[in-house]
This record gives sequence, structure tokens and C-alpha cells, in this order.
Amino acid sequence: MDGFTLKHVYEAQQFDKELLDIVFQTADEMKADLASGDRRFSQSLQNSIMASLFYEPSTRTRFSFESAMTRLGGKIITTENAREFSSAAKGESLYDSTRIMNGYADVIVMRHHEAGSAKKAADVSNIPVINAGDGAGQHPTQALLDMYTILDCLGKIDGLNIAMVGDLKYGRTVRSLAYLLAKYTDVKIHFISPPVCRMDDDIKEYLERNRVAWQEEESVDAILPKVDCVYMTRVQKERFNDPSDYENAAGRFILTPEKVSVMKAGAIIMHPLPRVDEIPPEVDDDPRARYFEQAQNGLYIRMALLYLLLG
Amino acid sequence: MDGFTLKHVYEAQQFDKELLDIVFQTADEMKADLASGDRRFSQSLQNSIMASLFYEPSTRTRFSFESAMTRLGGKIITTENAREFSSAAKGESLYDSTRIMNGYADVIVMRHHEAGSAKKAADVSNIPVINAGDGAGQHPTQALLDMYTILDCLGKIDGLNIAMVGDLKYGRTVRSLAYLLAKYTDVKIHFISPPVCRMDDDIKEYLERNRVAWQEEESVDAILPKVDCVYMTRVQKERFNDPSDYENAAGRFILTPEKVSVMKAGAIIMHPLPRVDEIPPEVDDDPRARYFEQAQNGLYIRMALLYLLLG
Amino acid sequence: MDGFTLKHVYEAQQFDKELLDIVFQTADEMKADLASGDRRFSQSLQNSIMASLFYEPSTRTRFSFESAMTRLGGKIITTENAREFSSAAKGESLYDSTRIMNGYADVIVMRHHEAGSAKKAADVSNIPVINAGDGAGQHPTQALLDMYTILDCLGKIDGLNIAMVGDLKYGRTVRSLAYLLAKYTDVKIHFISPPVCRMDDDIKEYLERNRVAWQEEESVDAILPKVDCVYMTRVQKERFNDPSDYENAAGRFILTPEKVSVMKAGAIIMHPLPRVDEIPPEVDDDPRARYFEQAQNGLYIRMALLYLLLG
Repeated sequence: MDGFTLKHVYEAQQFDKELLDIVFQTADEMKADLASGDRRFSQSLQNSIMASLFYEPSTRTRFSFESAMTRLGGKIITTENAREFSSAAKGESLYDSTRIMNGYADVIVMRHHEAGSAKKAADVSNIPVINAGDGAGQHPTQALLDMYTILDCLGKIDGLNIAMVGDLKYGRTVRSLAYLLAKYTDVKIHFISPPVCRMDDDIKEYLERNRVAWQEEESVDAILPKVDCVYMTRVQKERFNDPSDYENAAGRFILTPEKVSVMKAGAIIMHPLPRVDEIPPEVDDDPRARYFEQAQNGLYIRMALLYLLLG
Repeated sequence: MDGFTLKHVYEAQQFDKELLDIVFQTADEMKADLASGDRRFSQSLQNSIMASLFYEPSTRTRFSFESAMTRLGGKIITTENAREFSSAAKGESLYDSTRIMNGYADVIVMRHHEAGSAKKAADVSNIPVINAGDGAGQHPTQALLDMYTILDCLGKIDGLNIAMVGDLKYGRTVRSLAYLLAKYTDVKIHFISPPVCRMDDDIKEYLERNRVAWQEEESVDAILPKVDCVYMTRVQKERFNDPSDYENAAGRFILTPEKVSVMKAGAIIMHPLPRVDEIPPEVDDDPRARYFEQAQNGLYIRMALLYLLLG
Repeated sequence: MDGFTLKHVYEAQQFDKELLDIVFQTADEMKADLASGDRRFSQSLQNSIMASLFYEPSTRTRFSFESAMTRLGGKIITTENAREFSSAAKGESLYDSTRIMNGYADVIVMRHHEAGSAKKAADVSNIPVINAGDGAGQHPTQALLDMYTILDCLGKIDGLNIAMVGDLKYGRTVRSLAYLLAKYTDVKIHFISPPVCRMDDDIKEYLERNRVAWQEEESVDAILPKVDCVYMTRVQKERFNDPSDYENAAGRFILTPEKVSVMKAGAIIMHPLPRVDEIPPEVDDDPRARYFEQAQNGLYIRMALLYLLLG
């Protein structure tokens, strides 16, 4: 599509506002197409092969990409066992693996355990590489679907008041989201987390440089009535040295129906999923709960990206 | 199809005689279609995606379903690693997994280690769920293909004399089959097993309530000349406390060519496969040996179900 | 195709010069077809299902076959977990597994840990079986793509001077290649390996019987300026009792840019990949380096075989 200049998608930082607009618009078209009877995109990529190259399993993400490719008529070759490609025993480089995959497929969707892998693969690849999560690094399609969900539910990003709750230190989702939010104006972000998993300084500094107001707190209670969006994440037990600290912390970051009840009527609750108990199932029927819709939006965003890169 | 009222397939008990007729008739059509040159069903499900969601590997069952879907033009996303979806670490509920899969596929084929899982998934799914085996619970498509095989080979179910041999306690196949046989009239069932793996009382009582004559024995010899169908199953070593009991028991439940020779000319030998040594390879060429045909019938039955649920 | 008389592909020895010509010609057509816009073979196998039955993972080989099948419009059912088919616990025979797969697919691509498995499966299969590597046995499609690469790069096989370097004892690639080279005239082969992994006598005797000149050495230096093709393979540490022997040996079998510089301008460097450090990345840009092209040729050869067996 005119204006979509990317050859690969390896990090959220590649997207400026113009590119985001193109991706979100295309996602809208994909959503409409799937709902319509005629499905004009159903064979768009019929001669293309997507290689799902997962160095560690992530069935959910893989299925989302593979469903997206299939809905566009594309074909799939797939592994959750890609470490075998470059196993310790064999020691093959990512460079070799990528060059060989270039002969077998038209696009690579890569999940890797090491940060920076997707970019490294993209650098030597003649076919598009999409990062489906690389270690502690990036998961750009998740960040895009998060933004798309906010925009889709609330109609705009400018001026929003957003709370990010839970593990903000190790959760790559909230980090990438913070990055993308900074491209809009008058956004205000509240970071709410246990002390051991506070948002890192690099993001805070980035936000300041980009004139995004942020604020840090340890409790959601005061914040919930004010925000347009609560982005929940899971606090993982293994981050805590003392198990009782965890019990204490996790308990305080559960979004109970009582807590939800003080939120604005038009606000939204998001979660990258899977959840454990940070959002109890009783919240699911609340009209503000949008996390399943958010997961579903992943399909439209991935269809859009595949279409834009290959179509 | 008119009269096929099911939205999901999670247990054999869902099928009454009318539904069985519809499934078997459709399976006949699928069989004829595959044998014909023109293949009018080859693109019937071309816009549909089947998710093979296997929480434990069962390559044979998975291939049977995936081949069925493919023969109807449908597309597939697949994992034998679905436990990762709801891993101990992540703790996601089957409810969440199912809701998310609803966004990626048009039908879920689920294999799970816990009895009742398929029903639980079906209860929250907007797209059809087919049970491909859930723990000690059900494996309804196996029961359907068993019935279909008997009907196809012998032309009827009413009035048949059927021996079930081997592990009747832990083999979900024979349990489901007994259940379905009770829907027909004048069927007589012989249960032949070592004492440690006798058919449970619940099935015996069920048969009595439904006026199916049954009888229990510890040897096949007296029974073989009388029956129309011998349904063999494997006696697993791990059921026995004393290994010598196993040797003794397993030996007595091997269907040697000598034993086969006393069977009626028109009788049939079935086995859900895989077999170990309960049927020696020399029996394979006997015209009564129908277990490979039975496995093949699984394809037609699964094509029929996918077609009826989605077509 | 006229003249292509094989029903299965289980070993390199099945191919005489006439069959090789047919395969290589068809591979040429496939290569041209993929490069062309109209893709007249893109739907050739649209009603066929290939079962990738991998008893051990080999993602690279599997992807090569699956990409080939997909480029011809064929469909795929796949497992890297096929051991489960015949697990120790269940003990099913390859015979049963193969017969059952005959009902689900139109061609079986099999990778197995035991030499001779592919032939065993082929013997009982009504659908074509292609050996994708069986233990220490054969990997015939690799041998074919190696020959195809030499022919494609050098225009002929007759009269060539070829060095095989590295692990010649355990590398099934070089063994199969030696076998095929013997079908041509005036070929001269140099075997260059550490003493612990010399080419076995069976191949040497075979070459003598077929009037192929061969010679054995422990260093590449004297040979490199003379040869038309250097076929490198990896020397695996585990072949050596003494680690220092390994360091010593491996070092001497590294094809550094300095070593490459003495080769003829028109010579070629091959490697079955994955490589570790026997060919440093700096060699990749040398026009003589053809190993990535060689990997790519695997696609054309596999497309050709699938087409010839099923088309």
C-alpha cells in the first residue's frame, strides 16, 4: 500500500503516526472483510508461504499469525522446535538459518528467546521478517494490537488517561505500549506496580523527552475513577524473593468487580492474556472488559501486516 | 443437514438412532466422494479453519481429523503442545483458551488429559467443539467409527452377537461402543477380560436398563464360534500388580490364527489400534480382519461430522 | 512422466543415469516455474496430501519438503513426533503405522532413526514413500540435490575432480554422493579426512568396481588447486576419544579464505549445511561458495520428485 514503507516488522519504534494510521486502517478493512459475506481478501496471499519459525513455543501467538495468514489465502509451514535449527550440538548461526528459510518461504514470523534476534534476521533476509516476540526485547504486533484496541474502543488516543498495572519492569507489552503512546498528544500514564517491578527509567525518560505526563503509584484505588483505560498485567511470583511479599503484592493488584465498579462508564479494561487471577472471571461480563476483543484484534492487525508486507 | 441438530460433539450419548443414521449416511457419501473422480465435496469447507488443539500428542487421531478437514478443502492450524496454553506457570483457564480460539478458527478439535474438558469447552464456545478424546472420559468419534464399521461390514446392528475382549475397564472405546449398541434391538454382548479389567457396573446396569443381554467370561474359546463381531483391545501391563499375572492374562487374550479359524465365515474382527501382539500379523490377511478398514472409516466419519457441523 | 518408473524413493541406488536425467530436467522446470510469473505448476497437486512423518525432528528437511509440496498446490499434515505412533509403550509396528497413513495421505515423507525404515515402509505402502533420512542409512534427496548442484554449476559430471572433506565415515551425504558419482565417467574423487573418520571400504571398493579413481589424503592444501568441487562436511567432536585430537583435526579442515584463494576460478564449494566453523562466513561472498544455492536446489529437487511420483 502507498506509504507503507517497511520491509520488516521487528520493533514498535519503526512505526510513526502515519504508519500506525495505515496499519489500523488496513486492520479495519480486514475486520470488515471477515464480517462480510464476499471476503474479497480471502485469496489475496494465495501464492505465499509463511514460515512460523518459533524457537520457543507460543501456541497462542503462532495460531493468531497462522489464522491471519490462512484468512488471506496464504499457506503455512510451521515449527515450535526451531531451536533444533541452531541447536548447541549443531551450532548454526541465525544468519544461515535465515538465508535458508529465504528459499522456502515468502515471509518469516519469528519467535526467539534472545532480544534482538528478529532485527538480526531481518538484516540478512530478502523476505519480510516479523518479530513475534524476542526474549526480553520486543513484541511489536502485540503493541500494535493494543493501540488498535484503545483506538477502536475509545475513538482516539490524544488526551487519554491510561493506567498500567502489575509487572511493568519485565512486561515487554507495557514497555512497547508506552513507547507508542508517546507518539500522541496529551496522553497521561499512571504506573501502578509493586516496588520490585516498577517501570524502568529508560521509558520514563523517553516519556519525558516526548512530553508525556506520567506518575507512579502503588495502589489502583485512587486512580481507577479517573482513567479511560486500565491495562492489567500479571505479577509473576518468581520476581519476588520472599513468597509472602508476592501474596501481598498480587492481592493488591487484583481487579475485583468492586474495583471495576468505580471506573468511568466509558472506560475500558485491557489485558494481554493469559491472565491468572488478576482479573476474576466475574468481570468478563462487564461492558468495560475488552481483553477478549483485544485478543481478537490481534487477528486483524496481523492480517493487516501480512497484507501490507506481501500484498 | 436437516435433522442434524448438534452444535458440538463431546460424548457418544449425544447421538440417538436418528442422528447416527444421518452421520453414517453422510459418511457413506464421503466415502463415495473420495472414490469418485469428480470430488464434489473437495472444496465444501474451503473458507473454514480447524484448530487442532491437542493438550497431549495423539498423532494418529490428529492426522485422521486433519486429513478429513483437508479432503473437504478446509484449512488447519495445529498444536500437540496445547498444554502450554494453560501451563501450570501461566495457569490460564480452559474458558479463556476456548474464547480466544473462537477468534482464530471455525471449529476446535480438542484432545485433553482431563475427562469432561471437551464438554466444558463446548459450553463456552460459539464455534463447534469436537472431542478427540478426553482422558478417561470419551472418544466419541472412535465410537461412531466403530459402529459405522460394524454396520458397513454386517449390514445391520439389530440382533448381533458381539464379543468385547481385553481391557474393558480402562478402555474408553468399548465403554462408548457398549453405550451406542444399546440403542439397537436384540444385541447380545460378551465381555471377556482378565479379572482386573472387567467392564464396570455402570455400563452393565445401563445395558440392563436398555434390555441388552450381556454375559461375562474369562476365555474367548467357547464364544468365538458364536459371535458376529470380536472387538479386541490391548491389555496393558501396567494394570497388573504382578507381572506374571500379566503374562498369563495377555497370553490368553491373543487372537491367534487357530482361534480365528473357529469363527463364523461372515464374522468380523475389529481393533481400535494401535495393537501390540493381541492380534498377530498373520491374521491380517484373513477376510474377517477389518481393523485397517475400521481405521480408514475414521476418515469418513470425521469428514461427515465436520461437514455436518460446518457445511 | 514417461520413463520415471519409481513408485518410492528410499535410496540413491534406485537412480540410474536415465532417472537422474528425468529428475534433474524436472527440477529445472520447477526452478523456471517458480521464477516465472504464471506458475503453471502452482496447482498441480492440489488434491494431494503429503504426510510429513518425522520420527525425529529435522525442521530444515521437513520445511524443504513442505515448501515443495505447497509450491505445487498440495496440502500437508505434519508431525515431528511420530515416535509416539510406535512408542515403546504402545509398540506399534512400522507396518501398521504405514498402512494407516495410507488411508490419510497420498504420499509419505518419512524421517526415521533406524536405517532401512523407509524401504520397510515402502514395501507395505500403496502410496509413495520418500526417505527424508533414515538413521545412519540413506538421505537420497540430499544426494540428488548435491548432484543437481554440481551439474547446474559446472554443466557436467563426467571428468570432474572432486574433493570430499571432513567426516567421511559417518556422513551419509558423502557416501550417497560417491555412489551417484560412480554412474558417470572419468570422475576422480579425493577423500580428505582425519584418520578416525575415513571413508569406509565398502564405498572405496564400489568405486573401484565402477572404475572411479579415488585417492586418500590428510590435508587439503595440495589438492585444492586441482579440484573442480570441494564438498565440505563437519567433523563432529564426539567422534574423537581425545578432545585435543579433535581441536587438531577440526582446525586442519577449516576452509579459510586463504585456502579458497588457491582454488580454480571456476571451482565450487559445497556443504550440506548446517555448518559450524568449517567454512567461515567470510567465504560466503566468494563466487565459488555455492552452499546456499545448494540448499535452495533442495526445493527444486523435492518439487520434482513429488511431481514425478504424484503428478
